[in-house]
Amino acid sequence: MTTSPAAALTAMRAATPLVHCITNYVAMNVAANTLLAAGASPAMVHAAEEAGEFAKIAGALTVNIGTLSPPWVEGMVNAAHGSRQAGRAWVFDPVAAFATTYRREVAARLMDLSPTIVRGNASEVLALSGGDGAGRGVDATDSVAAAEAGARALATERGSVVAVTGAVDFVTDGTRAVRITGGSELMPQVTALGCSLTCLVGAFAAAVEDPFDATIGALAMFAVAGEAAAQDAIGPGSFSWRFLDALAAVDAASLEAGGRVTPA
Amino acid sequence: MTTSPAAALTAMRAATPLVHCITNYVAMNVAANTLLAAGASPAMVHAAEEAGEFAKIAGALTVNIGTLSPPWVEGMVNAAHGSRQAGRAWVFDPVAAFATTYRREVAARLMDLSPTIVRGNASEVLALSGGDGAGRGVDATDSVAAAEAGARALATERGSVVAVTGAVDFVTDGTRAVRITGGSELMPQVTALGCSLTCLVGAFAAAVEDPFDATIGALAMFAVAGEAAAQDAIGPGSFSWRFLDALAAVDAASLEAGGRVTPA
Amino acid sequence: MTTSPAAALTAMRAATPLVHCITNYVAMNVAANTLLAAGASPAMVHAAEEAGEFAKIAGALTVNIGTLSPPWVEGMVNAAHGSRQAGRAWVFDPVAAFATTYRREVAARLMDLSPTIVRGNASEVLALSGGDGAGRGVDATDSVAAAEAGARALATERGSVVAVTGAVDFVTDGTRAVRITGGSELMPQVTALGCSLTCLVGAFAAAVEDPFDATIGALAMFAVAGEAAAQDAIGPGSFSWRFLDALAAVDAASLEAGGRVTPA
Repeated sequence: MTTSPAAALTAMRAATPLVHCITNYVAMNVAANTLLAAGASPAMVHAAEEAGEFAKIAGALTVNIGTLSPPWVEGMVNAAHGSRQAGRAWVFDPVAAFATTYRREVAARLMDLSPTIVRGNASEVLALSGGDGAGRGVDATDSVAAAEAGARALATERGSVVAVTGAVDFVTDGTRAVRITGGSELMPQVTALGCSLTCLVGAFAAAVEDPFDATIGALAMFAVAGEAAAQDAIGPGSFSWRFLDALAAVDAASLEAGGRVTPA
Repeated sequence: MTTSPAAALTAMRAATPLVHCITNYVAMNVAANTLLAAGASPAMVHAAEEAGEFAKIAGALTVNIGTLSPPWVEGMVNAAHGSRQAGRAWVFDPVAAFATTYRREVAARLMDLSPTIVRGNASEVLALSGGDGAGRGVDATDSVAAAEAGARALATERGSVVAVTGAVDFVTDGTRAVRITGGSELMPQVTALGCSLTCLVGAFAAAVEDPFDATIGALAMFAVAGEAAAQDAIGPGSFSWRFLDALAAVDAASLEAGGRVTPA
Repeated sequence: MTTSPAAALTAMRAATPLVHCITNYVAMNVAANTLLAAGASPAMVHAAEEAGEFAKIAGALTVNIGTLSPPWVEGMVNAAHGSRQAGRAWVFDPVAAFATTYRREVAARLMDLSPTIVRGNASEVLALSGGDGAGRGVDATDSVAAAEAGARALATERGSVVAVTGAVDFVTDGTRAVRITGGSELMPQVTALGCSLTCLVGAFAAAVEDPFDATIGALAMFAVAGEAAAQDAIGPGSFSWRFLDALAAVDAASLEAGGRVTPA
């Protein structure tokens, strides 16, 4: 890393980047609140009529196929083109890319638009890398470790940074790789936190030049905030709002002290 | 009942069923969090291009017409067909079925696809059973008691389990019938809890063979969790997150002790 | 004012008005919870097939273009026509009206349907009034004070009440004008509170004859509840649920005591 998570957070907060999020209906509210709490400015804009234009205004784009449909896919494609034309980073979240024929086709189409960063769970990354995962519905049933080789291959083949998130996160650009620990066992009991993390990766990528460092910064911030929020939580409900408070409270010093990033 | 609420909960948690939810935009997040807290795995998939295929993967399907539109209705219809072909249970939530011409037509079309279970408020069930309710907007203005006869008739005519929820819930399959008490007066002050309950009924129906018992199990779990959450809540905001914690905390023993199900 | 905020709140609670909300995906849940906590009855209905019919049933209509697309715009237009035909108030929230060509065109089309009330941030109102704001994404970067002249001009030209909200709110009908203080610095860190306020303005407009007084009542209630919620909050997460509790707890007496409305 050339930019540490703490330095990345400082850069992101200083930029308060406008992040263009095309995400699913389940995640919209919590993703927007995640970005606001973290210090970025979210904008949800999906229509094909304006997504390409808006992507050029924003600091970064994130695309999530959780609740996709044909008109939304046109907006995603236009936005990815706009983002690339403007030289911005765009982040792809291939929710349940393995689950149906339609979903596999849309994921392949978006992968062909060269996302700067891909963030998914193990089953999703295995599916994108041509592997044979055991995903079911929208939940990963494969371990992050089982997807590391696929993530490296995907990163090399596509020239993308690939992040596999779970109990231990794995990030690689094909050459470099790290693991990130932290977070809480309550996090998988709260919906759309992975989707929200994808949006946060976009915020960091808008402010940090190296997308590998940006991704690590976002994941480390999420892990530290998750760990802090879990301390007084007794279930997924009490965790959720504490997590937003914790995101707002994380600063460079606490990220420096609490972030656990190790070479892989 | 052959399967008690406590036994139903144990079966549901053991299965961690994948529940295919087509629900409204207001409910998506809270419904997903309800299922996760309760121990099931939600997936929101609505596009006609994949809803039929996905319904065959899932353990059960739930369909809610709260914020309907023509493309979504096609997805709902495809999903219901897929669910039936795969021999799965599907649950219909006829939100505000009485309110507009379009809504009445869509509700009739979905009823013709033989939902395994129908869950609605009193005004909605009265509307489906051909009665003359006093519903306004999306809120019931009729009492559950006023809808019991209509619910029995609807269950018999359609071969569905019918659940009318409110201050006291009523469940019938046309032959058997029970009432369930519990919950809290704060629950109608929180949006989409009824919609979330429909999704939870789907989770139980995926794991419990008799849909009558499955419905009762889900409603009893909701009532017990609502009662627990209300103890320290002072308004709808503090209730909401406590309710998710309470759903996660309910177990077979507390459901056995706290559930109040009586023959009707 | 002929109807004070306290009297307006009393009238709104007595009416429990059905408010037809066409709002964005981010805001749907929090807007519905805001109305329920405040004492109104929300209904989210957007399809062109039923929005016009539903608007005639409801006490007021609110339209928000946060996540617009062509089919939704048709629903918005039908609803605005229905609302006008029924003699109801309708409230327009021009989210990010300045951001893209498509958004400017849709905002202009809706403004031509004579909204009773327009509520936006400073950058949005400047854009509607033909001014040259500095908006970016969905956030205002102009001060409310900078938009006051534009708001007066817009109100006079269109015959609408115009509310510009921010750290200090400004409301005018072109002739009369007030400023409202209160709220909390945490409010901009929580997504969709402005959108939710638009829906609350609809609730007051359904129950209070003068839309100027209705708007002031809703804004004063929001400001008092925000101030109360912030007292024990330590971040945006702990603020959010306290805000719903606070909305439910505000009554005529606390609004009378805490509301700070001054002529402008």
